[in-house]
Amino acid sequence: MSQLDSQKHDSDQLYKIRHSAEHVLHQALLNLYPEKIFPAMGPATDEGFYMDFEPLDGFKVSEEDFPKIEAEMQKIIKENLPIIQEEINIAEAKKLFAKNPYKIEWLETIKDRSEIISIYKTGTELVDLCAGPHVTSTGDIKAFKLLSIAGAYWHGDEKNKMLTRIYGTAFGSKEELEKYLQELEDAKLHDHRKIGKDLGLFVFSDLVGKGLPTFGPKGATIKRELERFTVDEELKRGYHHVITPDLAKVDLYKKSGHYPYYKDTMYPVMKVDEEELILRPMTCPHHFMFYKSQSHSYKELPYRIAEIAHQYRYEKSGELSGLTRVRMFCLADAHIICAKDQAKQAINEVLELIDFANEKFGLIRGTDYRYRLSLGDRKDTQKYFKDDASWDHAENVLREVLIDLKAPFYEAENEAAFYGPKIDIQVKKAGGKEETAFTVQYDFVMPNRFDLIFTNKEGKDESPVVIHRSSIGCIERTMALLIEKFMGNFPLWLAPIQAKIIPITDAQHEYANKIFEKLKGEGIRVEIDNRSEKMQSKIRDAQMEKIPYMLIIGPREAASDAVSVRQRDNQDLGAISVNDFLAKIKEQITTKSLNLIK
Amino acid sequence: MSQLDSQKHDSDQLYKIRHSAEHVLHQALLNLYPEKIFPAMGPATDEGFYMDFEPLDGFKVSEEDFPKIEAEMQKIIKENLPIIQEEINIAEAKKLFAKNPYKIEWLETIKDRSEIISIYKTGTELVDLCAGPHVTSTGDIKAFKLLSIAGAYWHGDEKNKMLTRIYGTAFGSKEELEKYLQELEDAKLHDHRKIGKDLGLFVFSDLVGKGLPTFGPKGATIKRELERFTVDEELKRGYHHVITPDLAKVDLYKKSGHYPYYKDTMYPVMKVDEEELILRPMTCPHHFMFYKSQSHSYKELPYRIAEIAHQYRYEKSGELSGLTRVRMFCLADAHIICAKDQAKQAINEVLELIDFANEKFGLIRGTDYRYRLSLGDRKDTQKYFKDDASWDHAENVLREVLIDLKAPFYEAENEAAFYGPKIDIQVKKAGGKEETAFTVQYDFVMPNRFDLIFTNKEGKDESPVVIHRSSIGCIERTMALLIEKFMGNFPLWLAPIQAKIIPITDAQHEYANKIFEKLKGEGIRVEIDNRSEKMQSKIRDAQMEKIPYMLIIGPREAASDAVSVRQRDNQDLGAISVNDFLAKIKEQITTKSLNLIK
Repeated sequence: MSQLDSQKHDSDQLYKIRHSAEHVLHQALLNLYPEKIFPAMGPATDEGFYMDFEPLDGFKVSEEDFPKIEAEMQKIIKENLPIIQEEINIAEAKKLFAKNPYKIEWLETIKDRSEIISIYKTGTELVDLCAGPHVTSTGDIKAFKLLSIAGAYWHGDEKNKMLTRIYGTAFGSKEELEKYLQELEDAKLHDHRKIGKDLGLFVFSDLVGKGLPTFGPKGATIKRELERFTVDEELKRGYHHVITPDLAKVDLYKKSGHYPYYKDTMYPVMKVDEEELILRPMTCPHHFMFYKSQSHSYKELPYRIAEIAHQYRYEKSGELSGLTRVRMFCLADAHIICAKDQAKQAINEVLELIDFANEKFGLIRGTDYRYRLSLGDRKDTQKYFKDDASWDHAENVLREVLIDLKAPFYEAENEAAFYGPKIDIQVKKAGGKEETAFTVQYDFVMPNRFDLIFTNKEGKDESPVVIHRSSIGCIERTMALLIEKFMGNFPLWLAPIQAKIIPITDAQHEYANKIFEKLKGEGIRVEIDNRSEKMQSKIRDAQMEKIPYMLIIGPREAASDAVSVRQRDNQDLGAISVNDFLAKIKEQITTKSLNLIK
Repeated sequence: MSQLDSQKHDSDQLYKIRHSAEHVLHQALLNLYPEKIFPAMGPATDEGFYMDFEPLDGFKVSEEDFPKIEAEMQKIIKENLPIIQEEINIAEAKKLFAKNPYKIEWLETIKDRSEIISIYKTGTELVDLCAGPHVTSTGDIKAFKLLSIAGAYWHGDEKNKMLTRIYGTAFGSKEELEKYLQELEDAKLHDHRKIGKDLGLFVFSDLVGKGLPTFGPKGATIKRELERFTVDEELKRGYHHVITPDLAKVDLYKKSGHYPYYKDTMYPVMKVDEEELILRPMTCPHHFMFYKSQSHSYKELPYRIAEIAHQYRYEKSGELSGLTRVRMFCLADAHIICAKDQAKQAINEVLELIDFANEKFGLIRGTDYRYRLSLGDRKDTQKYFKDDASWDHAENVLREVLIDLKAPFYEAENEAAFYGPKIDIQVKKAGGKEETAFTVQYDFVMPNRFDLIFTNKEGKDESPVVIHRSSIGCIERTMALLIEKFMGNFPLWLAPIQAKIIPITDAQHEYANKIFEKLKGEGIRVEIDNRSEKMQSKIRDAQMEKIPYMLIIGPREAASDAVSVRQRDNQDLGAISVNDFLAKIKEQITTKSLNLIK
């Protein structure tokens, strides 16, 4: 068995355990609350399982009942009951589930009256209409836990009845379950939505619309620092930063070929004058049109066109989540147009830039992120542009880059863009989950579609290739990642407020204001806490705001042109001259240091 | 006669002169080309006049014929023929103009058959169906000029026949005409559309859409510098910079009351999920929603919310013009929420910021810009929110600010926003025309509409007022203004490329590269001209690109760590040590100096 097959086997087994745990939950509920519920449905998921049921006659289940339900489930597991599949015809099934309108509804949808239906029993008890597969017996469920309870509309449609949903999870061992629960706790602690709210980074509003965040001054500061950092680093590396419009004629995206692939997540077309305009879901065709507005010699290649681009995708409301999934975002986007034999070097330079940025974010290659070589599928010509030779060549180029880099990577089938394969930078999030944060794509389709050319050494027209890449990705999403990573304790260069001046009594206000003006004049983001509160309470408040430095000012500091520096991690650095402090934090900001003063 | 009346009289007289000049043109064409044209129509305009006619049987008039036509016009003027109005009935008119289908068409549209029609004659010659008014005789036309020729559809509808249009202008004196023609020449020389194209600042594309500019790297550099300058200056002045979404539920703009006033220039509603979204035409309601997301004490006021905001207005294609009228733009917007008695001070601070920015743009108060106090109309309750007392108060506050400032200003009726009066900053453009570039508005309507409140000293809820303001206005438009003002010779801090290194021979390439890296490392926008061209030709090219400094590098410079500095204005500063040059231009950039090295 290859490693991949073995992984697949593990995941199949986990799926069986979870699906069977759901049956055990189902059985436990029927044992505990006979005649009180109609079970509706319940699948296994990537995270565990859930079960939907209708409580009858005002009956209610709450999380307080979980110990009792878990005990009943444990009893069924301890009995190690065989989980048995049986096959019956539809007429028999209708008789068995006559009382349950959800099962009957499902049976009614089956067109072929002669069809044979699969049901499962736990021991001798009937449980459910179910196609399986399951573990052999309940004893195989080595570890499980009920997690939460929520309302859910039948078929997810708000016109239908609201059912009760119980979420749980199950694993092949207690250790795995414990690890998962720990990760879940971690993820909750790190949740950027909660931290973002607590620190006043961003807000959502019903009147503005779903998935459309408003960044307050603090969140906007982080976003601005990220964007300026990206633009400045890219300019240093020879990128041409352009600014292209947020919307364009729908024809542009038809020409690029993006339209059919993206139209389900694009906003509706807006008819104005004689034109049909649409919000852009990506920047590529805009950059190609700009490239085409001039002629280009091989001497200019690689020609790197970059932009912090507003982009718009209509995500379903159920899929929206904090800053991770939004309906409008800013992408640190670029398209590198180069000769075919320059592609490898160009990709290397992009990976270097991503490494550079990741280092400033405290992300370490191998520990915090690895590469995924995302491949196409030669057979799926619906999803991928048909050109086997180009796919082979492009995939090999990317593979060679990763091998030469000695980079940690794995290959994934059927994850490419429609125009070519890509290297995805997979970042491990708080809680352990991995997600694609940045991407480098090899495109051999667009150059022809847009007739992109350059004049080669021989003075002839030649067709380039395009590397699509994001450097720090979707800024909103990267912010979510960083908020979760740092739990709000941002490195100094990203901290919305870098220092808080805390005068001990009103007598120091004049000196405090002097320091405030001095630091502000030097471009430090500083605030002053002039409230008539006790020093300890001001320090506590500044710590809650996760402000890196608190500058305590009493009569001694005022007399000696100094500040007493307290770090948010509670380290007390004692009294430092104002100039020394300023020099130190300016150095930290310029170098984008991850550490506070040592 | 008041000054205003006298101005009106002048403009009426000018209108008569121009309208009469059009009749003279009409007569001249009929004299020169009898049976070759059907005159269609011809009005006076703010700039002069034009006349549309249909050339018959393949006849053509071109600008080469202007001297001949002008001579014929001059003859008619010299004869000082009386311009005479006569009144006839429709039947007579139809007989007189029987051959001309355009006149007949017009006569057909008159419903009342008994109506009396006005016609005008020049001397004894019939000229046109015309309601007048005109000057008394052709000799009153003291100065005129034909300007250009173009095609124009009858009634402006492309389904109709294409006519020929001759543009001209006329004045009461030769001096006025000369001045106008000079301004026209100036405006052409300064035209930002031409300069923008020549310098590669921005491009338009049919496939992208009308009114949607793409800024190339050079234009994007100017835009970025302007934006960073604005954000940094506003942060220094205590503004809270936020980032709010480009689109929102249409309900938001209905709540603000903007929707009825703006809906004609708003993009169509986009239905997604259960929401109706629309691209925002302004930022105000977004900022109010942000303000409302927290509670506010009087201690925080004035609370200044700022944003470089993408905004979208659907301008008719005929009204689009370069960067001046676009379909998407960035506004340096802000809303200052303050107590009523803080408004005056808040407005003063805004005017100070605008003065500060204008100084960096080389715009001098009184010479290059003045203020317009834009007032409402108590009687027009359709256009202006009904609240006479608040209008009176707000208009007085603005008037007092301007009087206290001893600022050059004038008052204009019926130019306010629907929610209150404003101070518009009127900038004189190249060519002499004035336009509103920036604005400060007093709003007493929105605070109630959005229930904006703050807790006053007594601990009670109080309603604030809002100052809407732009600092550097619509960035695209301000760019157009600056391009025209500087004709591409931007001050160093805005120059897309600040210095071009010009090695005299290939032998200096290594040294040239060293200087290039050094300047680039210090954040200077520098390019190197490594072509094997002659020095003089490289200098000429750099001057065409309007690059402030050319750094000529020969063997002597290479040997002495120096550069020979040539300015784009041809001044030769001789050899300067690299460090000295660097110190000087860094100083110039930091201070945003308008002058090159003295």
